Amino acid sequence: MKTRIAFQGERGAFSEQAAHQLISASLDLVPCETFEKTFGHVTRGRAHACIVPIENTLAGSIHKNLDLLLKHRFTIVGETNVRIEHHLIALRGTTLREIRRVISHPVALEQCQKFLQQHPHLKSEMAYDTAGGVKMIVDQGWRDTAAIAGIWAAQWYRCGILQKNIEDHHENYTRFWLLRKESRKRRPSVQWPWTGRTGNKTSIVFSTRNLPGALFKCLSVFALRDIDLTKIESRPVIGRPFEYLFYIDFLGNVAEERCQNALRHLGEVTDFLRVLGCYPRG
Amino acid sequence: MKTRIAFQGERGAFSEQAAHQLISASLDLVPCETFEKTFGHVTRGRAHACIVPIENTLAGSIHKNLDLLLKHRFTIVGETNVRIEHHLIALRGTTLREIRRVISHPVALEQCQKFLQQHPHLKSEMAYDTAGGVKMIVDQGWRDTAAIAGIWAAQWYRCGILQKNIEDHHENYTRFWLLRKESRKRRPSVQWPWTGRTGNKTSIVFSTRNLPGALFKCLSVFALRDIDLTKIESRPVIGRPFEYLFYIDFLGNVAEERCQNALRHLGEVTDFLRVLGCYPRG
Repeated sequence: MKTRIAFQGERGAFSEQAAHQLISASLDLVPCETFEKTFGHVTRGRAHACIVPIENTLAGSIHKNLDLLLKHRFTIVGETNVRIEHHLIALRGTTLREIRRVISHPVALEQCQKFLQQHPHLKSEMAYDTAGGVKMIVDQGWRDTAAIAGIWAAQWYRCGILQKNIEDHHENYTRFWLLRKESRKRRPSVQWPWTGRTGNKTSIVFSTRNLPGALFKCLSVFALRDIDLTKIESRPVIGRPFEYLFYIDFLGNVAEERCQNALRHLGEVTDFLRVLGCYPRG
Repeated sequence: MKTRIAFQGERGAFSEQAAHQLISASLDLVPCETFEKTFGHVTRGRAHACIVPIENTLAGSIHKNLDLLLKHRFTIVGETNVRIEHHLIALRGTTLREIRRVISHPVALEQCQKFLQQHPHLKSEMAYDTAGGVKMIVDQGWRDTAAIAGIWAAQWYRCGILQKNIEDHHENYTRFWLLRKESRKRRPSVQWPWTGRTGNKTSIVFSTRNLPGALFKCLSVFALRDIDLTKIESRPVIGRPFEYLFYIDFLGNVAEERCQNALRHLGEVTDFLRVLGCYPRG
């Protein structure tokens, strides 16, 4: 049985690359139009898991997916970092001289400003998705249009690469999480490749009252036990001014005694605490 | 002399609304195509200051503007929160029945999914900018197209509102910062409206080595002095794995003794520390 993974975008998207980086097994990839539909597929059992971007080093956190993760009560079962390399992709046999228009997701266009400024005769237009732009070119047979997308999109739609690595910053990474429904079953229908391996990273979310030193108390539970944090982010709770959610990632497995002690201690000083997942570091 | 403020987008953008919320004086607003150009205008002295979005409650931090702020060494001189209300805007006299297409910035389209799902015959298309979509409709005279944008865009382009508040979440705010060049002149050419008022909020950025407890030590300098933090965010330093930048906002004025002590103490436990600005809380 193939592992069915839902993702947002068209075939050839960076999410698809992330799925292949994480899972070596044969995959059945399910493209979805929106992030809501991606999560919905898993909720309704149409996919075993979904893979979603959580954070881009240049663009920042994708809060929408953190919200959907909380709402759907999914568990993080894996993470991976994809280096975002943008290429100029067109129908095979097309040359750069024929191109008059460049289409892509607005974030990708934004990340290739230097290239676009060096080629001022190219008109840039937005598409819903990087890979979706390549699909449009193929579907419509446009010979005057190129798309900005990753190598997977070029390969999936059998297109040519007119120019490689046109991104402004080469140190551009997106972090993806693989998410599945919390399962009470002893034997899940799909064996994740790292089953039996020990997760060494844990993600949690908690809230505190907005009192001076509240966060300091929360961090003390980790510092007292020499637990290393790899990320911290605060976010106002929507609709409740002066209350904050904190997202923290730390290195450790929830089954370890020091981590269990830290989480119990953290429960004493927070209003709300949830473990989002424990998984191998990407 | 009018205060010249650069912003990204077309006239009628949410940034323009932010500028008017912050500054009661008569403004000369300078629309810019990109955030780089917005900062560039201030650097080259073509504008007194710029106003840029830093964070949206639903979409997250806009890291790009934090990067540009560091790169250009600007100072934050004010902040304001704009409630994002999306309206369906069309040429005056047009009715909803005539509309076949909706254009807007992808984030705005994303934030009006419920409305778009309730009207499946409306084709949605992306535009560079919310206000820019309204401008396109007016420039082209499109009677079959509506734009999703704020009230300011409708007023600026003298358009009608077909449906108000079509955003999915009404608790949708964007935080804007007003930024200017650090000036050594005693008498700036423009008097900011809060000159003489005391800033009660300070934003800083610092980096630490990735050692367990490093952040805890940093936060202790505030907790020991009962200084309240209103935001914390970590971000990997681009190109230097395992090093992090922390952005912190705290309540207090840099001239206060306890804040000066805290910052001096923080300097002892960080590799890099910069005060981004001290300004009245938005």
